[in-house]
Order: sequence, then C-alpha cells, then structure tokens
Amino acid sequence: MDKCYIGIDLGGTSMKLGIVDENGKLLDKLEKPTRGEEGAETGLARMAEHARELAEMSGQPWSRVAGLGIGLPGFLDIERGEIIRLTNIPWERVPVRTVLEAKLGVPVVIDNDANVAALGEAWSGAGTGIGDIVCITLGTGVGGGVIVDGRLVHGVSGMAGEIGHICMEENGALCGCGKRGCVETIASATGMMRLVKEGLAAGRQSLLHQPAQQGELNTRTLFAAAEQQDVLALEVIDRATDALGRLMAILSVVNNPAAFIVGGGVSRAGERLFTPLRQSYAQHALAAAARGVQILPAQLGNDAGMIGAAALTVRREH
Amino acid sequence: MDKCYIGIDLGGTSMKLGIVDENGKLLDKLEKPTRGEEGAETGLARMAEHARELAEMSGQPWSRVAGLGIGLPGFLDIERGEIIRLTNIPWERVPVRTVLEAKLGVPVVIDNDANVAALGEAWSGAGTGIGDIVCITLGTGVGGGVIVDGRLVHGVSGMAGEIGHICMEENGALCGCGKRGCVETIASATGMMRLVKEGLAAGRQSLLHQPAQQGELNTRTLFAAAEQQDVLALEVIDRATDALGRLMAILSVVNNPAAFIVGGGVSRAGERLFTPLRQSYAQHALAAAARGVQILPAQLGNDAGMIGAAALTVRREH
Repeated sequence: MDKCYIGIDLGGTSMKLGIVDENGKLLDKLEKPTRGEEGAETGLARMAEHARELAEMSGQPWSRVAGLGIGLPGFLDIERGEIIRLTNIPWERVPVRTVLEAKLGVPVVIDNDANVAALGEAWSGAGTGIGDIVCITLGTGVGGGVIVDGRLVHGVSGMAGEIGHICMEENGALCGCGKRGCVETIASATGMMRLVKEGLAAGRQSLLHQPAQQGELNTRTLFAAAEQQDVLALEVIDRATDALGRLMAILSVVNNPAAFIVGGGVSRAGERLFTPLRQSYAQHALAAAARGVQILPAQLGNDAGMIGAAALTVRREH
Repeated sequence: MDKCYIGIDLGGTSMKLGIVDENGKLLDKLEKPTRGEEGAETGLARMAEHARELAEMSGQPWSRVAGLGIGLPGFLDIERGEIIRLTNIPWERVPVRTVLEAKLGVPVVIDNDANVAALGEAWSGAGTGIGDIVCITLGTGVGGGVIVDGRLVHGVSGMAGEIGHICMEENGALCGCGKRGCVETIASATGMMRLVKEGLAAGRQSLLHQPAQQGELNTRTLFAAAEQQDVLALEVIDRATDALGRLMAILSVVNNPAAFIVGGGVSRAGERLFTPLRQSYAQHALAAAARGVQILPAQLGNDAGMIGAAALTVRREH
C-alpha cells in the first residue's frame, strides 16, 4: 500500500496541515488557528489531533502515514527536534519530536520554515526533478533555501540560505541585521518601497505620488506604474533586479545550482519581474556557470511550506 | 584486512600517486613524469603500472586496494568518468574510468583537481571531522572547493567552488574570466602583484622598488616588506584580506560552513595573512553565521590532491 506523509506549516496565526503522497502530490489540507498563547503542550496536542483529523478527511488510514514534518519559524535544534524559541509564538525549549512521536507513533522531523518551503518547491513544485537549487523568497525580506543534491543545506549554525544578507552596496542602507547594503535593503518589498519613498521625497515626478498619499504604496502599485513607463518605478525595479542578478551570479560560482526558484509576494509581478531578472543574471554571471541555468517562478504558493514539511520525513527514509 | 586506496594527482608535468589507509593517512607516495604528449593510451597504461608499483612499494597486496581516484585539470564528465579535454595535457575524450577499471579491477572515480584537493583537506587535513567546509586556494588565481556534509558540491556545470570569480569591485580590474573586479583580481598572488606594481608605477615610496628591479616581486617579498611596516605592502595585503573576508562573509550566508581552509602559495605567509583575514571576516560577516567558524591553514600542501583523489573512491562506498 502506498505511503503518505503529513506536513505542518506553523505560523504565528495559523497552522496549515497537508497530507501528500510519495510524489509530493497534495491529497488534502486543513488550516487551523495556532493559538500560540495557549502554550506548547496544548499546541502540540492540537497539532497531533489535527494531523489525525486530516488523515481521516483524506481517507487514509493512520497506518499508511509514514512520517510527519513540521516547518517552524524561529530558532531550532533540528538534530534533536527541539524548538529553542519561536518568532511570534511564545514557545521555548519544546521537545517537539519526542512529544509528537509519542502521540502519533510516526517519525517526526522539524526544520526552519524558509528551508521547508524551499524543499517543497524542490520536491514537487518548480524544482521537481532538479537536484541543485537555490530558492529566493522576495517578501518583507529576502529569504532563501539552498538545496544540494536534493538535500537541504543547513550549515553549522542554521544560517545557510540567509542570502538576503549578502552585501551589495558597501555604504548602503541599514539592514535589519545590523549591516549595511544587504540585498534585502534593495530587493525586498520593504527595500523597494524605501527606494520609492526616497525618490518621492526628493521631489521626483512619478505616478506613485498618488498611491503614496492614499497609503497604497506596495509592490503591486509599483509594478503597475512601471507598466506605464513611470521612470522612478522602472529605476527601483531595475535596481532591485540588478542586485538579484548579482546575487544569483554569486550563487552560480558557489554551488552552481541548475535552477533558481523565485517566490514570495513580489514574485507575483510575473514577467515584469522575471524579464529584467533574467537579463541582469545574464549580464553578471560567469557564462560557464550560467549556461542552461533556469530562473523559475515558485509554483506552490502558500502550500510550499506544508509540502516541504512532509518532504522532510520522506528524505529521512533513504 | 584493512582496505587501502590509491589517489593520483595528474598535472601537466608530473603525476603524483599516493596510497592511503581508510582514515586518509598517507602510507607511501610516488612521483612520475606525465609525458602527456605520448598520448592518453600510453598515459593511462603508465598510471596503471605506477599504481601497482606503489601498492607493491608500500607492501600492500593489490587485493587490498579498494579503489583508485584521479584528480584531473580540465573539463570532465565526472558521472561517466571521462576526460572531455585537459589543461596543459593534449588528451581529449578519454574514457578514463572504463580503461582503468579494466586494467586494474578496482572502482575508478575521477574529479576536478581543485575539488580533489579540497576533499583531501576535508578528509584528513585541516578539515578532519568537519562536514561543511569551503576551501580557498590562494595562488596564481583564487580557487575553491565546496564541501557539504562531507561531500563535494559540483553543481550543474561543474562550476561550484569557482569562488575567485565573485565580483568585489564593480568597475575593478579585468579578470581572466572576462568580468571585472573578481576576488581573484585583488587577492590572488597575481592580483596582489598587480596592486604593488600600480603603486610603484604611481611613484609610491616602498621597500618593494628594489625587489621589483631585481625581478623578485612575489608574495614572499610582499609579506616581508609588510613585516617592516612598508605602507604600500600593508595596503595591498589589507585590500586582499578585506576582499577575502567579504568573500567568506558571503559564503557564510550561503552554505554556512563550519570552517574555511585557506591554502595555496600565498597562505605560506602564515599569521601575517591569517590575522588580518580573521579580522576582516569578523568585520564583514553576519555574527550569527560566523559564530564559532574556524579559518584554518591547509595542512596537506602538495599531498592534498592525491589524498583527496583517493577519498573519491572511499566516499563512493557509502
């Protein structure tokens, strides 16, 4: 009988649970409130309960569930399967694996939420069948996930894939990490909005004055203005895609991945983002390292986390 | 009975053969001329003959040899064990693995010479016991080898580890790769000599005018001048170590290795290189990614290639 796997993507407000088959195909999913404030014990009990509920919903007997993976936002001891401390959920020092394995009788693996989303795209999203990948998530920040030979790279302190903090401008804007000029200060949604606001404040002519006054300055209105050849909007997008192209050029001579998968809110701009991104990469990358390399939009959207979480336990079987 | 492994480091002028035990300890070695111009058939026959000779020299019966690895300079089809074309040796399209497996009756694995040297250091040199490493070789160029979880990273077109071609100065000096401002243009021996010559040509006062006139400008005389507080020499070393520190800062948020192993001719400068290098890394790296990360001198010198070549076949057994 075919096995199936459950993945949980735990966020500050909701937990998303998905059940997938051996090929990473999503069979069914469920979303429940996180209620982090009720404490970890209650939270884990609810995760176990909802996992069983999901298996039942999808018509899978529990005996067919071969593993449960969880993507968590925060600091983890991945080897031991423990939460050290989470972002936006007040749980500390929680032995997730031990507790859930006892409750559910299946292997439990945890990992960082950004890593897990990358693994989802690699397993059954845009990266299906490609072993070496870097996922780039363009949202409030610039996140990443590095996959070598189908496996997530964690690094010595779990900082692998923190590619948003590669320095692009020596005396650039201050980043949340305390350094200056990180990719994130230029190419995240926040970074692009900063550049727009600077331009508007400097008295630049732009279609973006109006959305700015209406509190509607976001990447959607930015790309819409660029569509109408707004010079400021085009400049900001050009600067962001230039930084991202240089970032990918760097990654191409480190791990030389076969594909970059670009996701996150900003990636919804589609070809208005991907066309200049491909041009910038072609311009900056070493030709021998860039040959045949694909730059692909992420495919799984919000499902990537739970699918990748499920993948954590599939990989462990080898 | 314990197994042993043979590694061959093939260069333009000589082939170095080493026999190692299961822990990567070098039992014996042999160096023979390459004689590339005699053709691949003769060359491979001689490699096989010398491999048997080495086993005999070291008192190991051939039955105990569990594998043979070869590090080769040039373009390879690693999966198929074939040479596509080599640098400084006129061999093209040579099915090395097939030929040598038939001659020797042991598994044969080939890989790129830079990768193989990195694997040697990782296995039984400075990186012994550390799974995630980046090796940086400072010589005529700046080379590298990336190791994740004890395995070499190759990438889609074998360009993983070409970290010398990460851009550090947007409008910097022209690099051999065709791009501008690569790490290699600043931090290789060639790059440092370029900076010294520029300084001397601009009329800078320096102890280096004399070695320059005597044709003795090299990294040894450069570091000796720095030792005497020569301002130009100190500036050039500062610029090189600044670029290398920034390079390592980048690598720390890509794969987040536990150690950087720095080798190659320039690394013979010892603490005069490593002290500013560690300072620069501490300055540029994200603290969370740099915590506990070691910057170590390579230990195996010219033996790294043959030891790493031998390691290629050890790893394949898992």
